[in-house]
Amino acid sequence: MAPSFTVFYGAIVTPETLTGYKSLPQCLLCVGSTGNIDWVVDDVEPNSVEEILKQKGCTNFELVKLLRGQCLIPGFIDTHTHAPQFPNIGSGQQYELLDWLEKVTFPTESKFSDVDYARRVYTNSVQTTISYGTTTCCYYGTIHLEGTKVLADIAHKAGQRAFIGKCNMNRNSPDNYREPTSAHSINATEALISYIRALPSHTSSAEPLVQPILTPRFAISCTSDLLNNLGDLAKKDPSLRIQTHISENHDEIKFTKDLFPDAPHYAGVYDGFGLLKHNTILAHGVHLEDAEIELISERKAGISHCPTSNFNLTSGVAPIGKYLDRGIKVGLGTDVSGGYSPSILNAVQAASVAAKVIASQSSEEAKAKTQFTGRKLPVATLFYLATLGGAEVCNLEKNVGSLEAGKAFDALLVDARPEAGNRALWNYDLVESLDDMLERFLFCGDDRNISRVYVQGSLIGGQEVVGGKPQH
Amino acid sequence: MAPSFTVFYGAIVTPETLTGYKSLPQCLLCVGSTGNIDWVVDDVEPNSVEEILKQKGCTNFELVKLLRGQCLIPGFIDTHTHAPQFPNIGSGQQYELLDWLEKVTFPTESKFSDVDYARRVYTNSVQTTISYGTTTCCYYGTIHLEGTKVLADIAHKAGQRAFIGKCNMNRNSPDNYREPTSAHSINATEALISYIRALPSHTSSAEPLVQPILTPRFAISCTSDLLNNLGDLAKKDPSLRIQTHISENHDEIKFTKDLFPDAPHYAGVYDGFGLLKHNTILAHGVHLEDAEIELISERKAGISHCPTSNFNLTSGVAPIGKYLDRGIKVGLGTDVSGGYSPSILNAVQAASVAAKVIASQSSEEAKAKTQFTGRKLPVATLFYLATLGGAEVCNLEKNVGSLEAGKAFDALLVDARPEAGNRALWNYDLVESLDDMLERFLFCGDDRNISRVYVQGSLIGGQEVVGGKPQH
Ligand SMILES: [Zn+2]
Ligand SMILES: [Zn+2]
Repeated sequence: MAPSFTVFYGAIVTPETLTGYKSLPQCLLCVGSTGNIDWVVDDVEPNSVEEILKQKGCTNFELVKLLRGQCLIPGFIDTHTHAPQFPNIGSGQQYELLDWLEKVTFPTESKFSDVDYARRVYTNSVQTTISYGTTTCCYYGTIHLEGTKVLADIAHKAGQRAFIGKCNMNRNSPDNYREPTSAHSINATEALISYIRALPSHTSSAEPLVQPILTPRFAISCTSDLLNNLGDLAKKDPSLRIQTHISENHDEIKFTKDLFPDAPHYAGVYDGFGLLKHNTILAHGVHLEDAEIELISERKAGISHCPTSNFNLTSGVAPIGKYLDRGIKVGLGTDVSGGYSPSILNAVQAASVAAKVIASQSSEEAKAKTQFTGRKLPVATLFYLATLGGAEVCNLEKNVGSLEAGKAFDALLVDARPEAGNRALWNYDLVESLDDMLERFLFCGDDRNISRVYVQGSLIGGQEVVGGKPQH
Repeated sequence: MAPSFTVFYGAIVTPETLTGYKSLPQCLLCVGSTGNIDWVVDDVEPNSVEEILKQKGCTNFELVKLLRGQCLIPGFIDTHTHAPQFPNIGSGQQYELLDWLEKVTFPTESKFSDVDYARRVYTNSVQTTISYGTTTCCYYGTIHLEGTKVLADIAHKAGQRAFIGKCNMNRNSPDNYREPTSAHSINATEALISYIRALPSHTSSAEPLVQPILTPRFAISCTSDLLNNLGDLAKKDPSLRIQTHISENHDEIKFTKDLFPDAPHYAGVYDGFGLLKHNTILAHGVHLEDAEIELISERKAGISHCPTSNFNLTSGVAPIGKYLDRGIKVGLGTDVSGGYSPSILNAVQAASVAAKVIASQSSEEAKAKTQFTGRKLPVATLFYLATLGGAEVCNLEKNVGSLEAGKAFDALLVDARPEAGNRALWNYDLVESLDDMLERFLFCGDDRNISRVYVQGSLIGGQEVVGGKPQH
């Protein structure tokens, strides 16, 4: 008889607030057959494990004992990436945004009219994000309906939690990579939504693992008519998330203002069409004006901070501390291939660098009055952004983002031991504390240190599963 | 009979100037029994290989045929790192320089009075830098003579090209980690120099692989008397390289000026004691004054750019473009554990980020008149800094840093194929050009993509050798 419960015994690190996390060296965590966390008991001595299991009525279970140097953390949440751009990863670092779209992005994305090509690339994109511990991923597809359905199929089959969007683009891109009309774009969007919602759902998940998301690429790519129709879709179905780009680059901002001269600012364009909402994910926000920040805060929209991309495309440094002080939800995004890494660990490191660049340029007086503005982001905050912050941005914070009873078991088994084979994560003497282990993993870890990746209680990837080699 | 020559046939990428490199897809490169490159022939069709070998009189050779997706590049040169700080890698990211020395660095380094501990740590430090493709490494040891001898032994045995320095420190550190007198410090330094020079030397190397280097930690750590005596040593033996820190952090600069009120500036302190020379390696140089830049340029000293460390310790962003425009030699340094990565690949990425941060904050007018100042660093420049630029900083540019006839074969066999097992280096469709492969390797590669590491013609490491697992 297959076990009804999986019980983990060992170290757990899980975020609590923007500035604090729990590190529990001796924890029992029980995952039920639904894939949700049934209960968590802290401070369990080895000789009490059996007794507690008995008390809890756990009889038919698999017990996973973590070793010293291993721990469970919540899965990473990538709030912004482009599945079709994985073939360009690490290329084109000389460009800035608008040139880069023209020279690198659009030529590649136009190839996804070929469904077989889409299948080959997307299979690898999804396996790559999973191998780096991304349990929830917000994917942009291309403008192609069939290719984007394939992306949804692949994420669904892989068992990843994912938002899948077909880009809406009916202007300012090449002829071979533009939707002919607003109606065409909306029809294809509706068809994708129906398709994804018809995929068989994991019955125990509070929401389906794979969900559609409205994806106007950015205001430049969409006519007012198209944005208006998308706003109508969003209004008709308030549960639909929305993802788009905002205020990444000076030329982009200027172009947007030229295209929408009546809007008060960039954020105002989206807001005017009903697309700035509590479930809107705004990628970048590097150069937001104060009035935009206020509006975003008021609308309770979230920001996907993509620091690797912002550095790589010379976009600038997003003032994340300022957004956190205004109470805006913030998560991390890899923005492949604007960002040259598919790993949220890299995003964590770059987010730290971005905040430190700002801190090194801020006066002591300015910092004295703030919690985050102008300051470094502590490890606890970086960890939060990569997990629970991302969940908030996706409006999933009730279900995922931390390891607590009642939430889905979306988790990583982190292995910081030498046996994991990553020399860059120092491990000669075992690290002294869980806090130290978390910091070292975030700054020096890679996919080799992610042994298992769970989504809704199912083991979907990790080094133990794939053995570290790409699967083609 | 062992082969007298190793001949490589395949792709080679090697730097030429600060802005250009050669990428040769079909190259024959012959390494003689001395470990030097005997000859290089470009544009060789597969069916001409045998003929050329015959012409060259090559009969007793091993032929290494590179596969598509592999190439040879010069080994990386790490112009600044601290071997004893590898146990701290990834820790202490909340500190800035002076606190970090007190809380993280000095407590760890004081442990190296224990020679056995030193042996355990240094064995791993050296194997780690080699596994990341560092063929020449400038190591700081600790203040301990015996421990630093062990570091020299280990680098020597491993076959790495290395400069090994015992830190000179006789003030402003804890009682248990400070040399009692200037005389004690100088005696130990002289003893280390003699010890290293007595190590058996690779007869074919223009200079011994392992060499001593004078290492006053920084001006703060040394009394005037000690610096004066070190200047005398440098004068007595002009071939001795010197390494130290400069202008990393505002508090450090202020403290230095307080300690040396008569010096015109920080660089002037070293210059006043005869320690600012053509073979001085200055780590950091984040906040150099114009007069210092002029002096460094005049003295032909080199700068070790350690961007990961500068970000991590919130030191600031070094204006490397400005130094390049002034003709100052620049190499890259990992500065473990101020930097949280032992990999020059990480330094390359961080150097790109640093330059892009500066570029995003520089006006178009300022940039219009310069080659490097205020601008992004192109891939060619980054590649140069990691190889030939580092060689110049070490005064080794005649022997290493590029793959040319007459130079030592210090090289990496890079493997960008999926088989290397690094999913972050995209590789579904093989990369289109060598240029593209170089860029992707520099931005997305890791130790898994370094199959072989050669120094002076000997295979000393790489994935093929160690199988990717740490050796304890
Ligand atoms: Zn994007
Ligand atoms: Zn240093």
